[in-house]
Amino acid sequence: MNSQARGPVKRIADSTVRRLSLYLSFLEELNGSGTATVSSDVLARLGGTTSAQVRKDLSFFGSFGKRGLGYSVLELTASLRDILGLGRQWKVCVVGAGKIGVALARYPGFTYKGFNIVAVYDTDIQKIGSQWDALTVRDVARLPEDAIPEGFDIGVIAVPAEAAQGVADLLVASGITAIMNFAPVQIAVPADVIVRTVNMALEFEGLSFALANRAK
Amino acid sequence: MNSQARGPVKRIADSTVRRLSLYLSFLEELNGSGTATVSSDVLARLGGTTSAQVRKDLSFFGSFGKRGLGYSVLELTASLRDILGLGRQWKVCVVGAGKIGVALARYPGFTYKGFNIVAVYDTDIQKIGSQWDALTVRDVARLPEDAIPEGFDIGVIAVPAEAAQGVADLLVASGITAIMNFAPVQIAVPADVIVRTVNMALEFEGLSFALANRAK
Repeated sequence: MNSQARGPVKRIADSTVRRLSLYLSFLEELNGSGTATVSSDVLARLGGTTSAQVRKDLSFFGSFGKRGLGYSVLELTASLRDILGLGRQWKVCVVGAGKIGVALARYPGFTYKGFNIVAVYDTDIQKIGSQWDALTVRDVARLPEDAIPEGFDIGVIAVPAEAAQGVADLLVASGITAIMNFAPVQIAVPADVIVRTVNMALEFEGLSFALANRAK
Repeated sequence: MNSQARGPVKRIADSTVRRLSLYLSFLEELNGSGTATVSSDVLARLGGTTSAQVRKDLSFFGSFGKRGLGYSVLELTASLRDILGLGRQWKVCVVGAGKIGVALARYPGFTYKGFNIVAVYDTDIQKIGSQWDALTVRDVARLPEDAIPEGFDIGVIAVPAEAAQGVADLLVASGITAIMNFAPVQIAVPADVIVRTVNMALEFEGLSFALANRAK
């Protein structure tokens, strides 16, 4: 590990990005409560890590804070929002006009973070043409022709497991290179496509497994 | 790695447990569509892994399937449900009577998987005593005296980040050893306590980071 690295950002580990997100969430709370400065110790404690790790995580992106004075909450908040791309607006298309997509559209902080659901698709003829929040459900067959002109940044897979890989292939073929997968399945994509998977059932089954096998 | 391991199940990696959950979700779909047998190749493809990995994952728990015939969908479904502790019923208490807890209580498949929300707590005097789905919101101060008599298996943290560690400490002090954390923060717990964290905002910020830094 080289803390002097200033090269292509793709070298930054996912775990670092997650910690940056955590730091940001604390900074936003500190901001809300009117706190002006924060030490790496406090950020470390809140983020479940060490102050050396906090300094190292931030060092990838520049020089922050003053020795003995800590970080300016306002400045570091702005920097982290910029680093995480949260100053921008991202256009999100959702495939699967079901409960997950609706929950997402209503998720507090989703639009605040710059994620805007601009289109929703389905294969179900009964859903196509109907209203889904403020949007009209479109036929998924239209996705490839819509994606470039409408500038979708992120595709959300909100379909059952058996349909997920097909939707991923369609998103990739349409030129979308960032995918959020809510289906309970690993999807295969080319190396230049980013995928994140959210699956609450998997997490609960992990707890269940641990409880069941500890109780034996 | 030792595929002959039959020792304490705590040696099984989280990544293995996740794959078992994925295999189970496919098997349940195959069951629903009336498929009788499935090969490790098919499970591997659905789970984004190799057939050797599928066989190894299953070998931790016994001998399944017949060479050349594959696995019986019905039998392997039942075995995986048992391994993952899904034949049992788990009592879940939720701390934080807000949106996350409600979403969880209404999450399809949650009770089907054996997770039953039996109590909900809050610190807000305006919420305590009010109805929350079919439950009455209790004062969180009562949690330590309720936990053992009511047999809570899992505690859900559904409070803001700054309150999460305090709730975790309270759950641990109350004898609860499995925690699902929805707060955007790492929580510290003793080694014998299992924690899983679900945080959709972190996943989206990971995508945002990758998009922002690729676009530069």
